[in-house]
Amino acid sequence: MKTPFTPLIESLPAYIPFVAPETIERKRGIRFTTRIGANESVFGISPKARAAIENSIDSISCYSDPEWGDLREAIADKHQVHTENISVGAGIDDLLGLAVRVFLTNRTAAVASLGSYGVFHYHLDGYGVKCITTPYLNDGFNNLEALAKLAHGNASPMVYLSNPDNPAGTCYSAKDIQAFINKLPIYCMVVIDEAYIDFAPEGTALSINDLDPRVLQMRTFSKAHGLAGSRIGYIIASKEVVQAFDKVRLHFNVNRIAQAAALGSLQDPEFIQGVVEQVAVGRSEYEGLAKDLGLNVIPSSTNFVNFDAGNQVRAQAILDQLIQHGIFIRKPGAPPLDRYFRITVGTPEQRQHLASVLPQVIAEVDSVLKQV
Amino acid sequence: MKTPFTPLIESLPAYIPFVAPETIERKRGIRFTTRIGANESVFGISPKARAAIENSIDSISCYSDPEWGDLREAIADKHQVHTENISVGAGIDDLLGLAVRVFLTNRTAAVASLGSYGVFHYHLDGYGVKCITTPYLNDGFNNLEALAKLAHGNASPMVYLSNPDNPAGTCYSAKDIQAFINKLPIYCMVVIDEAYIDFAPEGTALSINDLDPRVLQMRTFSKAHGLAGSRIGYIIASKEVVQAFDKVRLHFNVNRIAQAAALGSLQDPEFIQGVVEQVAVGRSEYEGLAKDLGLNVIPSSTNFVNFDAGNQVRAQAILDQLIQHGIFIRKPGAPPLDRYFRITVGTPEQRQHLASVLPQVIAEVDSVLKQV
Repeated sequence: MKTPFTPLIESLPAYIPFVAPETIERKRGIRFTTRIGANESVFGISPKARAAIENSIDSISCYSDPEWGDLREAIADKHQVHTENISVGAGIDDLLGLAVRVFLTNRTAAVASLGSYGVFHYHLDGYGVKCITTPYLNDGFNNLEALAKLAHGNASPMVYLSNPDNPAGTCYSAKDIQAFINKLPIYCMVVIDEAYIDFAPEGTALSINDLDPRVLQMRTFSKAHGLAGSRIGYIIASKEVVQAFDKVRLHFNVNRIAQAAALGSLQDPEFIQGVVEQVAVGRSEYEGLAKDLGLNVIPSSTNFVNFDAGNQVRAQAILDQLIQHGIFIRKPGAPPLDRYFRITVGTPEQRQHLASVLPQVIAEVDSVLKQV
Repeated sequence: MKTPFTPLIESLPAYIPFVAPETIERKRGIRFTTRIGANESVFGISPKARAAIENSIDSISCYSDPEWGDLREAIADKHQVHTENISVGAGIDDLLGLAVRVFLTNRTAAVASLGSYGVFHYHLDGYGVKCITTPYLNDGFNNLEALAKLAHGNASPMVYLSNPDNPAGTCYSAKDIQAFINKLPIYCMVVIDEAYIDFAPEGTALSINDLDPRVLQMRTFSKAHGLAGSRIGYIIASKEVVQAFDKVRLHFNVNRIAQAAALGSLQDPEFIQGVVEQVAVGRSEYEGLAKDLGLNVIPSSTNFVNFDAGNQVRAQAILDQLIQHGIFIRKPGAPPLDRYFRITVGTPEQRQHLASVLPQVIAEVDSVLKQV
């Protein structure tokens, strides 16, 4: 007796986009004291989000609203669009999977940067869709010109781009992004993952007053709003795209408490502004730390900073040693960014701890690497 | 400029498996006083689940454990299997979509009862997979013999069955189900949706001591555990099936608070037993109510009861009138079960309210139907 898996399933490797800190803890038998690797917010949630969570517990036995009621209206208000332009999902990861289903088949190919957000590539693989890639530029920017050329050359119906970029942390201005969109084929959808937009300078977010039917923007409550464990994000797009998502998305796709929490958080822009300011302070501190250690960084518009270790081996060794010291971080996997290790902005205490451990770790790593 | 949807997306109707009570409220401008249509539990959640929810709010900024840590172990313990036999998802709806991806392609067809759980058929449509169906028997049972024949005749890699059945409420014994499995082709997977198993008589749940690589059981925390709004359920299956799910499932698929709530609820079997007993009392009351009104019911092993209205038109009219009276219920859509209206077991107060409204509603409906 053999289980009847599909040929695609049989062909897929048993991999996951990235290893969770809990998994590392279980495998290595360690306990992280400092969790600054998954770009989670260390600055908590708004008291309004907390109150909304507490108030929603009593109704947890009811299925969640599949059309997200007041939350959808609040999101539409925030962006000055209609509710018909908003679809909510269980985080950008969920929404990326739906985007693949809606725009791509195994007869077409997506276009994206080599080493761009892993979950997008995971979904492409999972749906048997090819991806044509071009490397990041050496300074950590997406190669917009090359991406547009690939979209034309491969008649691709979809380009993926994160802005600000994950894993690089760089960002383009809305003007640059609009110029990029204008260069794409008219049949090509551009999916812009704006998970880190709250941390980016004014003028980064693409204007959404004039909804282009070929543009899909993705937002999340996982970063500045501090609700990563809630699994909630949304798209801003044309009515037609939202309707297409409705044809295939899970009906009860977002936890009831998560919907309440997101709505509460939206009602507290001052709190989010405070988080953004604290993140900016932390980023500066990281840049100072890097300078002290003689390391370059990629200027970041996010809640994380990439430290340049010079080469892939040294970057990986530093990451491994930090993990051994109970500090969870991650690193980009593909060249040219694989020479960096990436650290999420921590609390002042976590940053102080990192600043005390990192010099020692680098010394240890360099001493070992010198012997090899 | 045209949005580049896939041919499959273009071909799909803009439908949803079932309309939510919130949507009906918005469209009709009414407010339901009595929500007994979605088979949600009206008996709340365990105090242990509530405590777990409250304790997990502080960590909501962290992504949830993608391998479900302690919860997965508790589930494995409960069923006396290994953690490798358990995969957790955002409710059975999520897991059904993954099952379609793992076992079916557009070159194969699923087999299921006509009018069986709508979300399964929604996923099949969404992935472009055909389904071969056979009607329920007239007394509300799945036609096991016909299903097995269809699986053979169509060389199907997957049969779907809910036991206890949704929407009928009937159930087969584990022995009958095992005999059914034995009649299936050796290349055919059977997906058994056991969402309502807690309410069923002893001897209904398929034995899981000897995991058959072709059997996949699905469970949920939405029903007896009262956590429908949490979006959490799981599969019990062979290690190979769980690994196949790992290849395509969302990594951070289940809300962190939901994982905590489910774990808390599992630690309180007495609470669940209490819910099951209260549901049994409510079912008896519904049977008595039906008898008083001269209506037959389908004997139920779930938390809902189907009332026989005699024909589809009368059943639909009674449902519409109940909704106008602020009582949300649903009904099966396909013959022969479309002559029933289906009511979830409510609280004693809700049942009393229903008992006071239903005779009047039926009288109104019959008076109108007589005139036509």
